[in-house]
Amino acid sequence: MKALAFTHDVPPQRVVFASGALARVADEAARLKFSRALVVATPGSGARLGQKVVDLLGVRAAGLHAQAVIHVPKAIADAGLQAARATNADGLVAVGGGSAIGLAKAIALQTGLPILAIPTTYSGSETTTIFGVTEDARKVTGRDIAVLPRTILYDPDLTLGLPAAVSAASGMNAIAHCVESFWAEGRTPVTLAMASESMRRFAKNLPAVVADGSDRAVRAECLVAAWLAGSVLSVSNGLQHKLAHVLGGLGLPHAEAHAIILPHVTRFNLQAAPEAKARLQNALGCDNPANALADMLQKFPIPQRLRDVGFDAAKSDFVAGEIAAASISAPRPASANDVRALLTAAY
Amino acid sequence: MKALAFTHDVPPQRVVFASGALARVADEAARLKFSRALVVATPGSGARLGQKVVDLLGVRAAGLHAQAVIHVPKAIADAGLQAARATNADGLVAVGGGSAIGLAKAIALQTGLPILAIPTTYSGSETTTIFGVTEDARKVTGRDIAVLPRTILYDPDLTLGLPAAVSAASGMNAIAHCVESFWAEGRTPVTLAMASESMRRFAKNLPAVVADGSDRAVRAECLVAAWLAGSVLSVSNGLQHKLAHVLGGLGLPHAEAHAIILPHVTRFNLQAAPEAKARLQNALGCDNPANALADMLQKFPIPQRLRDVGFDAAKSDFVAGEIAAASISAPRPASANDVRALLTAAY
Repeated sequence: MKALAFTHDVPPQRVVFASGALARVADEAARLKFSRALVVATPGSGARLGQKVVDLLGVRAAGLHAQAVIHVPKAIADAGLQAARATNADGLVAVGGGSAIGLAKAIALQTGLPILAIPTTYSGSETTTIFGVTEDARKVTGRDIAVLPRTILYDPDLTLGLPAAVSAASGMNAIAHCVESFWAEGRTPVTLAMASESMRRFAKNLPAVVADGSDRAVRAECLVAAWLAGSVLSVSNGLQHKLAHVLGGLGLPHAEAHAIILPHVTRFNLQAAPEAKARLQNALGCDNPANALADMLQKFPIPQRLRDVGFDAAKSDFVAGEIAAASISAPRPASANDVRALLTAAY
Repeated sequence: MKALAFTHDVPPQRVVFASGALARVADEAARLKFSRALVVATPGSGARLGQKVVDLLGVRAAGLHAQAVIHVPKAIADAGLQAARATNADGLVAVGGGSAIGLAKAIALQTGLPILAIPTTYSGSETTTIFGVTEDARKVTGRDIAVLPRTILYDPDLTLGLPAAVSAASGMNAIAHCVESFWAEGRTPVTLAMASESMRRFAKNLPAVVADGSDRAVRAECLVAAWLAGSVLSVSNGLQHKLAHVLGGLGLPHAEAHAIILPHVTRFNLQAAPEAKARLQNALGCDNPANALADMLQKFPIPQRLRDVGFDAAKSDFVAGEIAAASISAPRPASANDVRALLTAAY
């Protein structure tokens, strides 16, 4: 047995989780000493929820900025920064999925304003110090403690309207982060514990949520599982992550690509990771974790194969070359041939 | 299924864990900006280790104060405070078990000095905001964020010399906190994950450490498990904890009392806690967790029955009355009759 060695250095973050917790947003904003909070959301239904938050904040609200867009284009980030300055905001309340939280992070990076996040999806962005802004079709990402939300308010009622396909794809995306964290170089006993707990809850409750999205108790279980999965995001950067990233660069949808390749990447890596295999067997309650993940995917109303999401098989060599160049080593090296075989299986 | 609701609000703490990590103490002290650190330890062998830390700290050391005593008597706390002031210390480095860390906490409470803790036992005190000082044979405890060590340096090599009986008793003590956290009112998905992870590691490695205390890898596993168990200490305050506290007030040794009553309290409570039972079965890899804990205890070179640690059976009514007065409700109420039956079984 290899002796343990690790560093665990996690910044503080307050998490309030309850059905109906949205009603506590003013109290939590007060705890952060917000007196003029800018509410950040996406347009459309996001803006309606944003307005509700403004109303709940009452005198603590400085305004609503409902212009968040996926991948945080530079112009959108600049407009957000301007809105924060124009309203003289002393805090940010991000309500929505990864786009709203991503925009709030971009503003926080420039201003140092603290963020209170109210996530409505399973993206997990609210748990990380990772930010990203897209300019000239290139997403520049980085890490900064200033963008980590100080408080997360999870209200599972806000997820009741998530469509089954979105719940399934983003849930599988979160599971993918957990699986990969089991053999990540940067894993610690805490990330292992969090990922195990997340997978156990997802395995039990994600199929139930996809079957019936209106059950508050199972919605709560999945949102908790997404939070725990988010907390291991920062160590999940192996083959699964790299492959999803390269496929995303080719225009494939992120969560769906993660879901499709997950059983294949898992099958490939588990051969070299006996401890991870035991954990996955335990968390999923099965003998063959790769097959269990494939079965789970098969029952979900989302794309099953790379061909279903527009992957061009002629790009396999390009993808294989990109991955081989990344020199992934944990838990085993992935050669260009390995990647080609994997893409063929997933196609 | 009852819908989840909880608040998770954990302060920051840096944990550095590695065989030989003691050599990094000066770097970690520098990271905390200590320029005059007072090293706090117990007398005897604790003082020798304390002197080694002073030497490693070099110019960052203000001196060695090796006067820590179990339960932190008021006079000892006062002497520690005086030493910190006399040396003009700007930080505390506590090296040792619960006594050394407890004294550093008492000093931090009065001075606000940050603590760097180097634990050498499985007490878990380094992970909590709980402090205690004893005056007139009464221990006054409280919670204050000021006493939480900012950094913990875990070096499993420092635990190689822990006697088998001490490892066994303090390991069972830590397991008791985990078991109780499974049905604690204040449990969160994170405490559940940490406790599961801790028990899984203890179940596998504590018997190995008791059999051969010189194996560095299994020592590391047990120290990690103790850390994880410490992180759930703050929610573990049900029957197990109360009973051990009342027995401690009668003069019984703390860790040994915990170990002896654990299988009995577990058997009593599991009947009313099906989810906790499933978790324990999973973590211990067995069908009957109470029996598994009894088997573990039986193989350890520590007292097996309350009569072995000087419990006076005539005090059963007193103990039962104290517990009944505490009105414990989770996972089930414990009446005076229940407690008497439990004491008889453990006697």
